[in-house]
Amino acid sequence: MSDTIKMQTAQVRIVRSEAYVSKAEALKPVLLEEAVKAARIVEVVADAEAMHGWRAREAAPIEALEIREFKKGDAVVLDFGDHRVGFVSLGVRPVGSPPDAPLKLKLTFGEMPVEMAEPFSSYNGWISSSWLQEEILIVDVLPARISLPRRYSFRYLKLEVLDTSQKYRIAFGDAAVRTVTSGDASAVSELAHPDPVLREIDRVSVKTLQDCMQDVFEDGPKRDRRLWLGDLRLQALANYETFRGDDLVKRCLFLFAAVPDELGRVTANLFVEPDLIADDTYLYDYSLFFAATLHDYVEATGDEETLRELWPLARRQVELGLERLDESDMVRDDESWWAFIDWHQSLNKQAPAQGVLIYTLKRAIAMAKRVGCDSAAGLSARLAEVESATLARLWDAERGFFVSGADRQVSWASQAWMALAEVLPPAENKALMLRLLAESPDIGPTTPYMYHHIVEALLLTGCRDDAVAMLKQYWGGMLEDGADTFWELYDPQDKSFSPYGSHLINSYCHAWSCTPTYLIRKYGL
Amino acid sequence: MSDTIKMQTAQVRIVRSEAYVSKAEALKPVLLEEAVKAARIVEVVADAEAMHGWRAREAAPIEALEIREFKKGDAVVLDFGDHRVGFVSLGVRPVGSPPDAPLKLKLTFGEMPVEMAEPFSSYNGWISSSWLQEEILIVDVLPARISLPRRYSFRYLKLEVLDTSQKYRIAFGDAAVRTVTSGDASAVSELAHPDPVLREIDRVSVKTLQDCMQDVFEDGPKRDRRLWLGDLRLQALANYETFRGDDLVKRCLFLFAAVPDELGRVTANLFVEPDLIADDTYLYDYSLFFAATLHDYVEATGDEETLRELWPLARRQVELGLERLDESDMVRDDESWWAFIDWHQSLNKQAPAQGVLIYTLKRAIAMAKRVGCDSAAGLSARLAEVESATLARLWDAERGFFVSGADRQVSWASQAWMALAEVLPPAENKALMLRLLAESPDIGPTTPYMYHHIVEALLLTGCRDDAVAMLKQYWGGMLEDGADTFWELYDPQDKSFSPYGSHLINSYCHAWSCTPTYLIRKYGL
Repeated sequence: MSDTIKMQTAQVRIVRSEAYVSKAEALKPVLLEEAVKAARIVEVVADAEAMHGWRAREAAPIEALEIREFKKGDAVVLDFGDHRVGFVSLGVRPVGSPPDAPLKLKLTFGEMPVEMAEPFSSYNGWISSSWLQEEILIVDVLPARISLPRRYSFRYLKLEVLDTSQKYRIAFGDAAVRTVTSGDASAVSELAHPDPVLREIDRVSVKTLQDCMQDVFEDGPKRDRRLWLGDLRLQALANYETFRGDDLVKRCLFLFAAVPDELGRVTANLFVEPDLIADDTYLYDYSLFFAATLHDYVEATGDEETLRELWPLARRQVELGLERLDESDMVRDDESWWAFIDWHQSLNKQAPAQGVLIYTLKRAIAMAKRVGCDSAAGLSARLAEVESATLARLWDAERGFFVSGADRQVSWASQAWMALAEVLPPAENKALMLRLLAESPDIGPTTPYMYHHIVEALLLTGCRDDAVAMLKQYWGGMLEDGADTFWELYDPQDKSFSPYGSHLINSYCHAWSCTPTYLIRKYGL
Repeated sequence: MSDTIKMQTAQVRIVRSEAYVSKAEALKPVLLEEAVKAARIVEVVADAEAMHGWRAREAAPIEALEIREFKKGDAVVLDFGDHRVGFVSLGVRPVGSPPDAPLKLKLTFGEMPVEMAEPFSSYNGWISSSWLQEEILIVDVLPARISLPRRYSFRYLKLEVLDTSQKYRIAFGDAAVRTVTSGDASAVSELAHPDPVLREIDRVSVKTLQDCMQDVFEDGPKRDRRLWLGDLRLQALANYETFRGDDLVKRCLFLFAAVPDELGRVTANLFVEPDLIADDTYLYDYSLFFAATLHDYVEATGDEETLRELWPLARRQVELGLERLDESDMVRDDESWWAFIDWHQSLNKQAPAQGVLIYTLKRAIAMAKRVGCDSAAGLSARLAEVESATLARLWDAERGFFVSGADRQVSWASQAWMALAEVLPPAENKALMLRLLAESPDIGPTTPYMYHHIVEALLLTGCRDDAVAMLKQYWGGMLEDGADTFWELYDPQDKSFSPYGSHLINSYCHAWSCTPTYLIRKYGL
């Protein structure tokens, strides 16, 4: 077991543990595969009432595909019946004279009808257009069975014939996807719930989680397809109620533990191909979540061995979190992307990050006690100081809200995280959440990730009916708007919202949106 | 050995000989491979004097490639030093943060600088745009060594980064091509000739032939990449003077012999993938060339066994050729694409086709005598009748030219083919060719294929100096215009000429242009 120091970028030095890499590698899951055929031919039509203004409607049964002939410029949209993650193959045969030129074919994959309707060339956002799922293929020999080497995340597949020749046309046949997941559906008990909306929300949550469970917990199988700590924490919680792929959580914890930087900081996300690589993004809240996720894992599994092995690194995250406090025990705010919390453009991160610190500190203390670590007492003392400072400096008794940053911003995020951190006594904590609902400050949630924390804060504070109402309204709204899996982004007031510059590049199956199954099952809603 | 009748299209029934397919398969050559690295970085600049208005000039040594960083929108053109046919691979590594999005890359292959300079999207011709050699790749994992599965024909390779992400750039390295050919250069003797222009024309002819020698004689490795009888005949002639890949000629003869139609007609061209398929194009001259090519093969190799085996099918082509004659022994003309002869738009095909018939009939009679076939006498009798009718009806004594079609067109093609067919006595035949040069009728040659036949007609009639002058002017002109291999099309008066709608889709390494090495070596120029 030798640890090597590796230069990753000019700024960050990674201390790599080969032992942890090996542990993670040994826990790599076998992917479960299923062959699924295209279900029908659809056309995507404009519909002002539909999500993004587009709706898919059946145009022909799938049997019609094999007898339809395509010449240059012809196209068809296939519907695979539900959201799918996997490897696509497709038969192509020539019709007419022998093919005297290659076939040029464009394939466009979409999770949503809009991806079939609006050209990807219209995308001009700030993240890479390479996430838009399209391929241009040139096929020299026909007939052929085309097996695409890349994995796609989609329900719809548009086939466009860019060129054949004047002498031949083509026909398609047997379009299929070999789906992959490490989430074993047979391990998930069915939810027997009288409310059909909650049953459906639960079902789609489980599907969302399953499609993100690959050889790591991915944040989204369309985009970014990698392991983020913020997503992992929520996926793990949903997993304990459903798939019980607990070894996958353990694997992910060891992957993060294998590549901290020289300070001991855990990265916000990592890559596993071509080799394990820590991204050079570090987020205050996400690093702390390493400790929170370890805590939840041990609670769910009782795996004390892993706790003992990873506790020093978890404690280190809390120490680093405490190091960012200023002399008055306030998390230092700044203009950079230092904490995530939510995608809201105007959100001040100070108070919610302070909430995340306290939330994590409490779980760290529980772990310290469980492993019998001396630091429990010291951490408890710091917790008391930080909570006291938080109440003194961030609690605005007059407004009845926690405030954040120099401008004393009142946001939903700050209240939710302070509630989850249980800074106020229970009755006041509940009153805080009820006041939040009643007064509804402007700086609201923009992602299912933030909605999750608000709903859980409502449940924790005993506002069960409000929690269920919000859950049904928000995730149920996605269902009404056509979700097969829950989306990365959903703003009922602005359904085309994207922090990336276009709804085309949003992910429509996203890990952090899978938590209703956790909330419903854990809290017995 | 069973022959099967197979429905190929509604019109044509193929009688397939599995025995001939097996013979051809047994003669399939092993391809010779060579690893060639990119030679330098070039930039393609506008130059009114250059072919198509574009010239490649060195921008940097190839060593500069590895240290150059590419972000979205950046591009580079690599020069592989000479024309290459083969499989390309390329290293790509990320620079900066770990790649947090796939790399989207466009590769454009060009035989000529113009293909690097003018966008393929500008192509709007009548043959398939799928021949334009470009690929769009999405690379999920970096670093990577990209190995492209398709074969390309090129000298230049443009690499364009369509997208990375804001967090990383890329660098390329070790761009290489694994070239393939069945032409063994070590079998070709060097031409010791005092004239450096003829030496260079010979060298480039040999290179052109070599790049077209794959597992069949292809017409062009960029486009159409298949076996045409008109090209095969000329490649075979050049081959006997150079590579002596005589088994490849034999293989191609058996491939054609394996799939005649139910009348016994040999197709104009065929496909060998995914299986042997006769194209449904039949051309009067090309079918006859099956007999001429067999004749030349036997002359070159003395392979009487193959002659005896294929003679009946060769004779059948001549019979079918004779069947097209009307009651006055004239080849029936029509408006369709029934004979090739040349790409000239206004060319009437009757007289040149009549020439091809007589030319082939003479070679068929020689073969009939060699195999001791009774039909020699009958064919000789028909030859006399056809020659006599040709002189009576197509020879315009007043003008001193053969005329073609209802409008009595005088073309270069008609005179060249009548001269090659030796319809006139030697002195008059020579006078015909000199008159052709002197009077230069409007309907001239448009392709190297037609130029070949004119030059050979000059040589056959004893106009050696004129032949050399034309050869040096025409093929030497291509060299001056930057040819690495000889082009499918070259009109010194209209250098952008293309019968397909754009010079972008022309082939710049084309079998029918490789004949100077045959003309130089065979006739001892």
